[in-house]
Amino acid sequence: MNELLESSIFRKEIVKINETGRDHVIDTLAVEEPLEISISVLKASPPVFNKNISITMRTPGHDADLAVGFLFTEGLIASAQQVENVIVSENKVNVFLNNSETLDLSQLERHFYTSSSCGVCGKASIDAIKTVCQLDLSPTPLHVDMELIKTFPEALHKKQEIFDRTGGLHAAVLFDTAGQLLDLREDVGRHNALDKLIGASFKKNQLPLSDRLLLLSGRASFELIQKASMAGIQFVMAVGAPSSLAVQLAMEFNMTLVGFLSKNRYNIYCGAERILDQESTLSS
Amino acid sequence: MNELLESSIFRKEIVKINETGRDHVIDTLAVEEPLEISISVLKASPPVFNKNISITMRTPGHDADLAVGFLFTEGLIASAQQVENVIVSENKVNVFLNNSETLDLSQLERHFYTSSSCGVCGKASIDAIKTVCQLDLSPTPLHVDMELIKTFPEALHKKQEIFDRTGGLHAAVLFDTAGQLLDLREDVGRHNALDKLIGASFKKNQLPLSDRLLLLSGRASFELIQKASMAGIQFVMAVGAPSSLAVQLAMEFNMTLVGFLSKNRYNIYCGAERILDQESTLSS
Repeated sequence: MNELLESSIFRKEIVKINETGRDHVIDTLAVEEPLEISISVLKASPPVFNKNISITMRTPGHDADLAVGFLFTEGLIASAQQVENVIVSENKVNVFLNNSETLDLSQLERHFYTSSSCGVCGKASIDAIKTVCQLDLSPTPLHVDMELIKTFPEALHKKQEIFDRTGGLHAAVLFDTAGQLLDLREDVGRHNALDKLIGASFKKNQLPLSDRLLLLSGRASFELIQKASMAGIQFVMAVGAPSSLAVQLAMEFNMTLVGFLSKNRYNIYCGAERILDQESTLSS
Repeated sequence: MNELLESSIFRKEIVKINETGRDHVIDTLAVEEPLEISISVLKASPPVFNKNISITMRTPGHDADLAVGFLFTEGLIASAQQVENVIVSENKVNVFLNNSETLDLSQLERHFYTSSSCGVCGKASIDAIKTVCQLDLSPTPLHVDMELIKTFPEALHKKQEIFDRTGGLHAAVLFDTAGQLLDLREDVGRHNALDKLIGASFKKNQLPLSDRLLLLSGRASFELIQKASMAGIQFVMAVGAPSSLAVQLAMEFNMTLVGFLSKNRYNIYCGAERILDQESTLSS
């Protein structure tokens, strides 16, 4: 087992109850620990600026991705060029920015007022995101084969290492339109899994992800659709149910939203025109 | 269908993909909408005090329970006697307190710094909760039959109305030790479902819930165990996996924590002495 996997797992003796009685066994649990995210600006005026931004309960691993992904999807920073350095120590990440002028502190206030599992307030927030997202989001034509979509849960399952051992993690996964799994992140918090995934692409200057497909292992909430939209993602699939506001936001952004995805069936909540059956795929 | 159920459901035409192709159908989604929670103190000094505390994304219904439950489990208020009135308007709840002296504003700061899906920072927070919880938590002897526990998921399933229609809601449920289902709340946010459940008991002056069993429909995180402990709950069962920190916190509070609960089996992570097989139950 590799080191990253090891830091995500906690072993404990437990009692298993089944049909035949009690067994004492060693079980593996998904690790949940606090991560403090702070920002420092070196060339700030006044000269040094340091601010604690958030504490999030997360599964250790890819902490730098999580921190920059969080700062980006919350609208505090807009590009990898702003990030001078990221220092990770145990349960703390300090993101050093090269300039305070591009740091949008109004978004910080919004973050303090709202809370991380809840995103932001309905209608007002939809406008807020549109203002904040600084990516070029001119629509990219994107088409996906209707049957290919059914293969994604199995592809996720094959790669979801920590979940296999603990049953306790959410995953966020990127695919390309040919069905290739490009990247996967896991976390006890589904918003963290997505921030880690987006943060990894952010660091590599790969945003917007307008030609990518996002798969979420659980339900689709407003907050997750909001984060996906910040990264320019147009195509979101969830293994679980979407909420009403998730669908409304996805419609507002002209995204495709698929829910209850399994190997046999799924629901399309909006953007069905991007999903083509084999005949249309061949002729398109 | 009753009015409460109606307000929790959103209807939309969707495309269903299955083995045979596409179908256009009307689907029901779980409603997710922002709720703003604020506090007003009438006899405050200065005379009137009004503060916005939080915006949470929730499923409408039992909003007053959610607001007082949230204020209680976050440590801002300690007893129903502090609450003069609760005014609910669309997507806003204002909780009127009769006195600002008992309002613990240091907890407010903690809440602004942390975020709602993440609870608070590990070790420091464990101490914080112990300070904050003002209930008499002298241990109550509590014993539950080993086989009875396996019947709880089915009891939950029979009562979970909105989930049945949408597949999109978490539930928090209270049972007594004889297996009677006492109360159930549903929400798109699992922390909200628990706040609603605890808020209902808080309003009826029924805290601490030291002789009750709590069932969570999903996974058990640190935050949920923290909220349960605030209400004096000693016995928590989850249909999903617990996180490492959830188990550590439950151990710290001498709680019983059950996970992966199904009709055939479950795991006991700590507090196994409260779960008795039939022979011990008869002789106890």
